[in-house]
Amino acid sequence: MAPRRRKSPFEQDLGPNAANYTPLTPLTFLTRTAAVYPDRTAVIHGERRYTWRQFNERCHRLAGALSARGIGQGDTVAVLLPNIPPMLEAHYGVPMIGAVLNTINYRLDPDTVAFILGHGEAKILITDREFSAIVKPALQKMPKRKRPLVIDVDDPLYTGPGERLGLTEYEAFLSEGAPDHGWTLPADEWRAISLNYTSGTTGNPKGVVYHHRGAYLNAVGNALVCQMPNHPVYLWTLPMFHCNGWCFTWTNTAMAGVNVCLRRVEPKAIFDAIADHGVTYLCGAPIVMNMLINTPANQRRGFPQKVTFNTAAAPPPPSVLQAMEALGIEVTHLYGLTETYGPATVCAWKEEWDDLPASDKAAQKARQGVRYQVLEGVTVMDPSTMRPVPADGVTMGEVFFRGNIVMKGYLKNKSATDEAFAGGWFHSGDLGVMHPDGYIALKDRSKDIIISGGENISSLEVEQVIYRHPAVFDAAVVARPDEKWGETPCAFIELKPGTAASEREIIQFCREHMAHFKCPRTVVFEALPKTSTGKIQKFVLRDRAKAL
Amino acid sequence: MAPRRRKSPFEQDLGPNAANYTPLTPLTFLTRTAAVYPDRTAVIHGERRYTWRQFNERCHRLAGALSARGIGQGDTVAVLLPNIPPMLEAHYGVPMIGAVLNTINYRLDPDTVAFILGHGEAKILITDREFSAIVKPALQKMPKRKRPLVIDVDDPLYTGPGERLGLTEYEAFLSEGAPDHGWTLPADEWRAISLNYTSGTTGNPKGVVYHHRGAYLNAVGNALVCQMPNHPVYLWTLPMFHCNGWCFTWTNTAMAGVNVCLRRVEPKAIFDAIADHGVTYLCGAPIVMNMLINTPANQRRGFPQKVTFNTAAAPPPPSVLQAMEALGIEVTHLYGLTETYGPATVCAWKEEWDDLPASDKAAQKARQGVRYQVLEGVTVMDPSTMRPVPADGVTMGEVFFRGNIVMKGYLKNKSATDEAFAGGWFHSGDLGVMHPDGYIALKDRSKDIIISGGENISSLEVEQVIYRHPAVFDAAVVARPDEKWGETPCAFIELKPGTAASEREIIQFCREHMAHFKCPRTVVFEALPKTSTGKIQKFVLRDRAKAL
Repeated sequence: MAPRRRKSPFEQDLGPNAANYTPLTPLTFLTRTAAVYPDRTAVIHGERRYTWRQFNERCHRLAGALSARGIGQGDTVAVLLPNIPPMLEAHYGVPMIGAVLNTINYRLDPDTVAFILGHGEAKILITDREFSAIVKPALQKMPKRKRPLVIDVDDPLYTGPGERLGLTEYEAFLSEGAPDHGWTLPADEWRAISLNYTSGTTGNPKGVVYHHRGAYLNAVGNALVCQMPNHPVYLWTLPMFHCNGWCFTWTNTAMAGVNVCLRRVEPKAIFDAIADHGVTYLCGAPIVMNMLINTPANQRRGFPQKVTFNTAAAPPPPSVLQAMEALGIEVTHLYGLTETYGPATVCAWKEEWDDLPASDKAAQKARQGVRYQVLEGVTVMDPSTMRPVPADGVTMGEVFFRGNIVMKGYLKNKSATDEAFAGGWFHSGDLGVMHPDGYIALKDRSKDIIISGGENISSLEVEQVIYRHPAVFDAAVVARPDEKWGETPCAFIELKPGTAASEREIIQFCREHMAHFKCPRTVVFEALPKTSTGKIQKFVLRDRAKAL
Repeated sequence: MAPRRRKSPFEQDLGPNAANYTPLTPLTFLTRTAAVYPDRTAVIHGERRYTWRQFNERCHRLAGALSARGIGQGDTVAVLLPNIPPMLEAHYGVPMIGAVLNTINYRLDPDTVAFILGHGEAKILITDREFSAIVKPALQKMPKRKRPLVIDVDDPLYTGPGERLGLTEYEAFLSEGAPDHGWTLPADEWRAISLNYTSGTTGNPKGVVYHHRGAYLNAVGNALVCQMPNHPVYLWTLPMFHCNGWCFTWTNTAMAGVNVCLRRVEPKAIFDAIADHGVTYLCGAPIVMNMLINTPANQRRGFPQKVTFNTAAAPPPPSVLQAMEALGIEVTHLYGLTETYGPATVCAWKEEWDDLPASDKAAQKARQGVRYQVLEGVTVMDPSTMRPVPADGVTMGEVFFRGNIVMKGYLKNKSATDEAFAGGWFHSGDLGVMHPDGYIALKDRSKDIIISGGENISSLEVEQVIYRHPAVFDAAVVARPDEKWGETPCAFIELKPGTAASEREIIQFCREHMAHFKCPRTVVFEALPKTSTGKIQKFVLRDRAKAL
């Protein structure tokens, strides 16, 4: 008989206690930075400046004011705000009292906003006067007893139309709280910190729940992946409502950076901020890069510092990468989903690629790459068998994630949560390949694949070819129903101002650069419909293609 | 009656599962780096080079070979090794199979080594031939049935005396394991990863237990605090047996760095490594800096890259800081204890100090500073009341730590663990002050304080003055019993080669620079006794002072 194994001495009388265990939460980054660098600038907004001491006090005031209104553990505080100081403050003041921050996309329609406020059970809504035309009808659509208490932000930098909807303005509300209002660590690092509704293209949006542990880890993950030194100067081109600004809302605090706010993403304002404030980091979808490289010369500014642009949402086309490099801005390609706290993979650059021809460099950088240090796994598998596809760069499968920066799940939606986590991996719904070097590359969303004559065509691949045409500003390819082939690729193209191209020319260009069966059969020239985060709304284009 | 509060929807059906929860462990850094950078150099040892693929395979082989000998979950594997590849491999191969790594200081005496092997219940000992003169008698002192199985490392770079003590050489042992031997994440991130005995000056050493969570977090913490970019080139001057190389054994892997091994800390070898391998980081006690700045000109080498030296154990004296700067090496001052995974605070530098006079800069840098991002709290309190001392830079108290990089506790020593964690803080035993800017500064170990005529004298403060004397190479001040005053300061001084100074001269020098009651009454010129980690053994000096 085998001897009975006694309990390891390493697990005896060595449990967690107040001295050696603290729940992970990004809130501790704020206490540290405010203590160590109280007089450094934390936030710039127009002429306004807050030091870390002031910012910390404002966050505590917010916590106190919310608390005085009865908000506490597990309550939802919704915000519908541009990238201004109150938005950043909400990322601290709200979770400090155990409440959950629900950032809402301000480009949504009133119906969706009403749905989110109701489904998320928001008790308070902090909203910017600029968006009252959306928020007012949204509130009216809600049953009275479910409507949140409204706090208006009346930002002096906004002088356009709009009205206050609540009884209290944000600054007055803040003054109700004490600058040293107490706060506590979450009782458990698994507790929710924020709620982010996905911009689903069909059906009601799903509420993605983040926890303190994941927010802490991806805040750190960003710093590691971006090789961020102390005191980054971060320009807020990426909406903070988008995955809590990809967790940079917390990263910048951990690294004692400067948050340069931006109400509106405009090329001149971006160049001015880079030149005037010494911006070193900014993030955004490719649309922002497009905007930068197409900025008229008289609105551009020079700058001496190294600037890094982290992009995600769609692989940066080679032409864009080259143009960004010419501007003196280095592009890092990240990838992730709302469900993965924003970016969770990075196209980690290798020195040996430095000497490649520009197009090959761009091809490397267009890949979604490898996992963050703080993610445990990313893989491409056949979703029916859950077995990894061969790492051949060709065989398509679905991209799966696993690890600590994967969401808790969808709020009040057990079936969607279970489905998303089936088999112990998060199902991204993105289709991709695994390259022999372990880097993944997206090929498409499952629903964006075009099946023509039984062959799968990646709309992304067709788009990347079209982007190389010198007259193309933006492009999207979708399936158009076809009697003979089932579907054929249909391209929607937005041309650069002052350029011209014909349907025939585009098709010919594609035929020179890719297999003929993949080339568009139809080309439509028009402005592309986009979501608030700069993603092209393919479902709109699919409808148009059907109607052609 | 207040309405009964229902369970928050944020905590319903949103629990951890295989997709969204992974125990934190530094082992996942290795799988990532080996996958992303398989062909980059991981380890340099003399002419030997291992890529990350090879290093990863060697770690897996070690895991497999240990596993084949019956080693598994909760078993202890002890190593007594210099900073060579097998030492680094043990930091991965051992925990990969759930075993606990016990690194033993190779400068200990056989009795202590025997105690540690017995107390830690080591099942395997991997030892370098160089230390057989210690290990052989240590093993003989142990009861036969408790002796670990011995694996000898016979490093070709070591050609001195010594014998093999076991039946198997390390390289042969490795070949027993498969390069793809399976491994698993720890079932719980609280599971032990390593065991580090403190070099207590009295009584038996205590076994400090680290867990996977803390090792992961401090590995990341080092990277953040050192603002480490990808691919640091790290020179192993700091013994890996010391707090697992302050967790840089894991940091360097997270950042895909190069580990430059070093059997012996010698000035020429250090300068050669910096110049030949482009070293960017190294760590060590002030003794290593002393060695560098006193290196004869013909053994020095120039280097173009920025080099950072992280020092801890004692505050770097101003003269040393200035000399290091002149060498082109930037010094960062860290502080921590074995109980805090090595460094847990950093003297975070501020730009506004750049323009201070050299001596003021040095005074700033001599402070132990502020907590790591991954530590929750460090404070100075009156240990009897557990209330923070005033932040006046004067009032002395004990330094306390709290957070995730505080040890699990002491192995099989519940009373010492309870005592160390009393009041929910880790009691460091170090005395210090809190400055108005929130930076802590050590004044002494409690037992190193000299009480003269009822006044507390910080031996550290006296030493810092003595160090400024141009002839002084190393110095230590201890209490000497005195009939009239109770105690008086007694200085032990090691002079620089080719210099001279008299007792009177030293005392006079001190009187010019500090309060008279703090000045040494006695000065002894002799070589200072040091521990293996370069710490001066004050208990030896105290005995000598008593006998004077």
